[in-house]
Amino acid sequence: MNSKILDGKKLAKKIREEIAQKVIHLKNEKAIIPGIAVIILGEDPASHTYVNMKEKACKEVGFYSEIHRLQNSTKEEELLKLIEQLNHNEKIHGILVQLPLPDHINENIINAHISPFKDVDGFHPSNLGKLFLGQPSFVSCTPKGIIKLLKYYGVEIRGKHAVVIGRSNIVGKPIATLLLNEDATVTLCHSKTRDLAQYTQQADIIVSAVGKAHLINHKMIKREAIIIDAGMNRLNGSLVGDIDFHDVIEKVKLITPVPGGVGPMTITMLLENTLEAALRS
Amino acid sequence: MNSKILDGKKLAKKIREEIAQKVIHLKNEKAIIPGIAVIILGEDPASHTYVNMKEKACKEVGFYSEIHRLQNSTKEEELLKLIEQLNHNEKIHGILVQLPLPDHINENIINAHISPFKDVDGFHPSNLGKLFLGQPSFVSCTPKGIIKLLKYYGVEIRGKHAVVIGRSNIVGKPIATLLLNEDATVTLCHSKTRDLAQYTQQADIIVSAVGKAHLINHKMIKREAIIIDAGMNRLNGSLVGDIDFHDVIEKVKLITPVPGGVGPMTITMLLENTLEAALRS
Repeated sequence: MNSKILDGKKLAKKIREEIAQKVIHLKNEKAIIPGIAVIILGEDPASHTYVNMKEKACKEVGFYSEIHRLQNSTKEEELLKLIEQLNHNEKIHGILVQLPLPDHINENIINAHISPFKDVDGFHPSNLGKLFLGQPSFVSCTPKGIIKLLKYYGVEIRGKHAVVIGRSNIVGKPIATLLLNEDATVTLCHSKTRDLAQYTQQADIIVSAVGKAHLINHKMIKREAIIIDAGMNRLNGSLVGDIDFHDVIEKVKLITPVPGGVGPMTITMLLENTLEAALRS
Repeated sequence: MNSKILDGKKLAKKIREEIAQKVIHLKNEKAIIPGIAVIILGEDPASHTYVNMKEKACKEVGFYSEIHRLQNSTKEEELLKLIEQLNHNEKIHGILVQLPLPDHINENIINAHISPFKDVDGFHPSNLGKLFLGQPSFVSCTPKGIIKLLKYYGVEIRGKHAVVIGRSNIVGKPIATLLLNEDATVTLCHSKTRDLAQYTQQADIIVSAVGKAHLINHKMIKREAIIIDAGMNRLNGSLVGDIDFHDVIEKVKLITPVPGGVGPMTITMLLENTLEAALRS
């Protein structure tokens, strides 16, 4: 069974060690320390947990980081002003606004205001446009991490039928684009898809990013499928993905566990994007 | 058989008449005349034919238009300078660079240099990013025209399985995105797809934008499929699409002819985008 696991935790650790080495080098050779600014509004516990994980990861690899903890009532124009300052701050190479934002703030405006050169989350329209065009750009972290994981384990993507479930701007749409850029034939399914199983049963590679516990079971996949589970759901007190792991494990060729699959790769790609931004600066 | 035709020529004529009315109104009410600048390099006869068609269409609806016919040897920096001038020219609301460009000019740099507000072809990365995000933007003309045609004929897109063949930045990828935004389940096939028929046979809607004469025959489609043929190919001296029209006509529900289907819609959407740019200005 272990040989079927796409071990994101292990690969993330390896990449983080490499990043830490590069940071030492960058510091010694060019006196540059990659710096990241994280902005968080309000008191949502899950968001704070994520931000703390990001801060910890930054410290581990030797980045400079600063967390801007703002009140939920912060006005959009104040947030834009802070972003503007960070856009011009030479110590900062990556800017990250923790989602979700409160309702009175327009996420699109915020994302488009971050300098495309510091957009380490890959949410700026011009970075998404470049992704779409297949040009080099900052790619959002979860999709980028998924591709790294597939490649690390030698999964051939070219010519394969990849079925992506979920069309979020953060995961579903960009991973579909990346898989297409890797020459997969790609089907994008979502809440309006009729008879989801009809599509998943044909997939060589499935990426699920929906947020529904155990949406996919063994009847919905073909034998030897490769499965990426980007879902994170609470079920009876434990953390599970969109895939019913124990139900499908016998049938699959490779699968990411939850936790320990896609999750650790996401933060690692944030580190990689920030390092890249620092190198380009 | 006629009831099966998605008549792009007819719809294009109707929309152009409406645009001409709006232009008169805009001129009388706000003293604005929508203006377009077309840039063409070199002597490629097909490109000149397209440009002449665009110029004629602009005249018909009362637009101001200017054609910049440059030598094939024009340097990239000269072209960028001209675009810069046009970006600041108040008479010009839409800028269009006729493709293909000569090899010594980087198309990506040119497309990204046109002001996103005058990018009536929808090729600027930030407009593509907005399309990707489902935000309002200039959408490239062929995909926009295809959606108009489907809607005009009352084709329900939501929940349908749409199979797009071809992944160009100009047609394949944006039409896949638009169909997704209209709630279709979308599969994108291309040159690396294995067993194309396996996908096309399942499609409720097929959009082909490959440029291979008669790529699709009746064996490759299901009964009552709706087919959009964005191909334009020469075969034995006549203009044909990617679909073998006469071979599939019995089996389909609706189909665009070539010529007279997608083609007339493309230029019409260029007019619509330019009008929109003028209204926004």
